[in-house]
Amino acid sequence: MPITVVGSIAYDTVKTPFGERERMLGGAAVHFALAASFFDEVRVVGPVGEDFGEQQVAVLEARGVDVSDVERVSGGRTFFWQGEYGWDLNSRETLDTQLGVFEGFQPKLSERSRSSEVLFLANIQPDLQLQVRAQLPRARFVALDSMNLWIDLAREALVRAIGSVDCVILNDAELRQLTGRPNLVSAAREVLSWAPSSPSADGLARGPRVIVAKQGEYGAALITREGFFALPAYPLESVIDPTGAGDTFAGGLVGYIAAHPDEELSDDLLRRAMAHATVLASFNVEEFGTERVQRLTGREIVARIGELHAMTQFSGAPLELLG
Amino acid sequence: MPITVVGSIAYDTVKTPFGERERMLGGAAVHFALAASFFDEVRVVGPVGEDFGEQQVAVLEARGVDVSDVERVSGGRTFFWQGEYGWDLNSRETLDTQLGVFEGFQPKLSERSRSSEVLFLANIQPDLQLQVRAQLPRARFVALDSMNLWIDLAREALVRAIGSVDCVILNDAELRQLTGRPNLVSAAREVLSWAPSSPSADGLARGPRVIVAKQGEYGAALITREGFFALPAYPLESVIDPTGAGDTFAGGLVGYIAAHPDEELSDDLLRRAMAHATVLASFNVEEFGTERVQRLTGREIVARIGELHAMTQFSGAPLELLG
Repeated sequence: MPITVVGSIAYDTVKTPFGERERMLGGAAVHFALAASFFDEVRVVGPVGEDFGEQQVAVLEARGVDVSDVERVSGGRTFFWQGEYGWDLNSRETLDTQLGVFEGFQPKLSERSRSSEVLFLANIQPDLQLQVRAQLPRARFVALDSMNLWIDLAREALVRAIGSVDCVILNDAELRQLTGRPNLVSAAREVLSWAPSSPSADGLARGPRVIVAKQGEYGAALITREGFFALPAYPLESVIDPTGAGDTFAGGLVGYIAAHPDEELSDDLLRRAMAHATVLASFNVEEFGTERVQRLTGREIVARIGELHAMTQFSGAPLELLG
Repeated sequence: MPITVVGSIAYDTVKTPFGERERMLGGAAVHFALAASFFDEVRVVGPVGEDFGEQQVAVLEARGVDVSDVERVSGGRTFFWQGEYGWDLNSRETLDTQLGVFEGFQPKLSERSRSSEVLFLANIQPDLQLQVRAQLPRARFVALDSMNLWIDLAREALVRAIGSVDCVILNDAELRQLTGRPNLVSAAREVLSWAPSSPSADGLARGPRVIVAKQGEYGAALITREGFFALPAYPLESVIDPTGAGDTFAGGLVGYIAAHPDEELSDDLLRRAMAHATVLASFNVEEFGTERVQRLTGREIVARIGELHAMTQFSGAPLELLG
């Protein structure tokens, strides 16, 4: 099923203990689209400025991503983020954020982007997420990401946006903040309970059925009404730049689901999607920005899925216990 | 194979967001022994003071633990720890530590404790760990735990102690601190490389073959020369008191290995041991101190192993990827 993603397209200047890069191609929609492009057709909706290069567009096009809804704002500057990561890459400091054309962004979706059966609402202002959501009323699978900023500034709108999607993908700390529940499982169950018992008149307020808690270097957990699943991150001896890992993860997850239109949204499907998400994210962090994913191959993904599978299995040999 | 554990026997006063308890039975050796007692015979070596009650001894005896090397120091006070946990239980503050009889503790092992084929060196001063290790030269499997304090104060002795065991069980942050390597996999590989290429004359310096990184609520990872394995923590909606979870984990791990004397120390055996460790730890945190594990049954452990197994499996259905 074709996938529409709405979110930021950016230039990132990043410093990690392993080096730095200036004005790399970045942004949530870009990382998501590159990852999801391994699974299905992806349509990107987002603004760029006059400073956005043909070279950057070509990176998306090379992976078959539809960029016709990438809106070039004349006289504008592309969203810019600058950050620096600490020693163990688990902490990062934002040094500069220039919204540029992202300020006052009003998503404009072509008929083509509105016809997608799968939608990913990357981390943008929740009212905008709702507005986009309303333009794809018949989408079969909708997921969203968000961040602490919107939990602080626009929690009510975010809760409404969550009520309009199937799948919420957040960092575990954000799930805790959003619900005020320190326990991850009960935080996730609370968000699942935000589903109305019956769909609203407009068919949008069906409520989330799937909660994905991203846990950074520790992996990710999946909580549905049926069950719980967790995967460690794929272990890497060298992690260079975590920027975009979460969006790449989402691209793997949503992309995998999009590539299985004939399957119900079962826990079995979701678990396989989590594995592909984990593997995509692991490639993303091996190099700066989009460098690694740009030259990634399907064969490499499949091979790493096999390794991840082998790393997470144990046999349930029975044992006579004492007492 | 019988297991000897050397470590603290304590009274713990603990406050968590869910309640508080004064002077509960605690200590690394106690939590370890209760968990390991489900798998094999456990012999505890450690000092207590005159204030240590028969009731506390009876908790260990009820699980068949051999307490004949629990040394009662006349005129002494039992090791006391007081701590308080934060909102999400991931941070804790030590409010009081009174070493009591633990100050100047010189482990005295009976012939029986020295005859064990499995040894766990709980978190005590590394020179003491080495001293105990030397008294079981023919032990088939030896594991140790430690803490940031000893990495700060006695790193050289700790490195020697690590060189004398098969298995190192540490928090992931401690592995990073110990090696100065921020990346978990390379930190673990560095510790594995501390193994001398051939056993030393006394047969002790064989070096670690197994590194277990405890990751708190995120689970644990296993790194050997052959491979990598990771398990999430068993998900609980209600966690009451994490005190002793790490030692309970170690008790499940070491106990499971002890219960399989005819198996080689393969990754397959270690993975099953990790699962049992994870499950034991999950019961420990459900209530204060040793309350839950005291009335735990083998049947409950086996049932939760099955659940954990189900929560960590995904199928590797092949997929045609684009590019």
